[in-house]
Amino acid sequence: MRILLNLSYNGHHYYGFQYQHDARTIQGEIEAILAEMHHREMRIHPASRTDRGVHARDQYIHFDTDLTIEPAKWAYILNTRLDDDIYIKSSMEVSPDFHVRYHPSKKTYRYKLYTGDKNPFYAHLKTHVSRELDIELLRKTAKDFIGTHDFTSFSSAKGVIQNRTRTIYDCHVEIDDSHIDLVITGTGFLYNMVRIIVAYMLQVATHERPRDTNAILAARDRTHVPRTAPAHGLYLEKIEYE
Amino acid sequence: MRILLNLSYNGHHYYGFQYQHDARTIQGEIEAILAEMHHREMRIHPASRTDRGVHARDQYIHFDTDLTIEPAKWAYILNTRLDDDIYIKSSMEVSPDFHVRYHPSKKTYRYKLYTGDKNPFYAHLKTHVSRELDIELLRKTAKDFIGTHDFTSFSSAKGVIQNRTRTIYDCHVEIDDSHIDLVITGTGFLYNMVRIIVAYMLQVATHERPRDTNAILAARDRTHVPRTAPAHGLYLEKIEYE
Repeated sequence: MRILLNLSYNGHHYYGFQYQHDARTIQGEIEAILAEMHHREMRIHPASRTDRGVHARDQYIHFDTDLTIEPAKWAYILNTRLDDDIYIKSSMEVSPDFHVRYHPSKKTYRYKLYTGDKNPFYAHLKTHVSRELDIELLRKTAKDFIGTHDFTSFSSAKGVIQNRTRTIYDCHVEIDDSHIDLVITGTGFLYNMVRIIVAYMLQVATHERPRDTNAILAARDRTHVPRTAPAHGLYLEKIEYE
Repeated sequence: MRILLNLSYNGHHYYGFQYQHDARTIQGEIEAILAEMHHREMRIHPASRTDRGVHARDQYIHFDTDLTIEPAKWAYILNTRLDDDIYIKSSMEVSPDFHVRYHPSKKTYRYKLYTGDKNPFYAHLKTHVSRELDIELLRKTAKDFIGTHDFTSFSSAKGVIQNRTRTIYDCHVEIDDSHIDLVITGTGFLYNMVRIIVAYMLQVATHERPRDTNAILAARDRTHVPRTAPAHGLYLEKIEYE
């Protein structure tokens, strides 16, 4: 039986989603509990592998089990054993040909910034911006990314993926007093893509560099955008399945 | 010159305020920076020594310096060297006979609770309550503590203080959707006093025990209130000086 879990987590205390034999990861924590319950090694599959320190408000994972546990009960069982910074919101049975990784139609990421005095209660949850931001310029720059583009200039050179063309359905700024969120929705995202886009947008909105998004996209060269915004402001916000 | 610092901190990653030679504490972090600047050991004095995991939104500390640094600059200098979870809000010169510990007239603590689904982004910042709370009973029980009482029943037996009479000026509940804060203001608080009061109030508001606050106060015996609410929901909220 294939079980689908919908979960959220605070990534601060984890070395990312993916299993590492010598570090605490989201996958490692969940697989350890499942292995204990099944008396064998267990493998879970995520919709998206979040990096070290990145959070998720709406992640999906699936795994196969032969235990006769009611599908909806898995959430409760796992929550009693997981730390407070991982929360399984729901669990359900899905068809054995459903795969979290291959079926999402849209993903949304949110990047949380705040301005003004530093707040120690946002440490590891939001990125502080000490310089003044030109909000209109930030809004305009966000719109530059909407559409289908080759995002080579806005992705880590470390990525192994050859086809770097992605479609961004929406990219906008949400503001609530000193809190500024960048929300971006697309078919998929390259390695570090959202964090590089955020770093670029911040440089533009603080007038550190001109807004020349189209030229940079056309260049297909990461050296044009050398910065990457910190991981702790990034949230996997939503995954939509067909 | 005596310098007064007003600061806030997220206590999650600290073994409390007070210096420990083998553990990370708020005092240890700040004294280490000051010692490096002064080329000698430095001692800071807090208005209140918060326990491991307890937060502060408005703590005060003072120290004496012979460096010719403009008083208001200390906040900036320390912030550049401190981690993101400690923030010095301001610094100023005070008279050499001012002592943060002996002059406060009122202290306010806030205890943060929330109900409903667990939220991993509140881990270490708010205490989750899974049982239903009788809010009217919670409000009534809060009022029981207002006044001058011997708080022996509501303080840790570990405390060495003999006189356990304290005056509570105000104790009330603030509610915003699923967020429930208990706010308590008094002349001073005994060891674990707020956390024991919160644990008792939660037991009353979930109908686990009757509301017999006056009888318990009169008994002067901690065994009547065996529980202590977790540290991570507690905030030193405000310190008022005459």
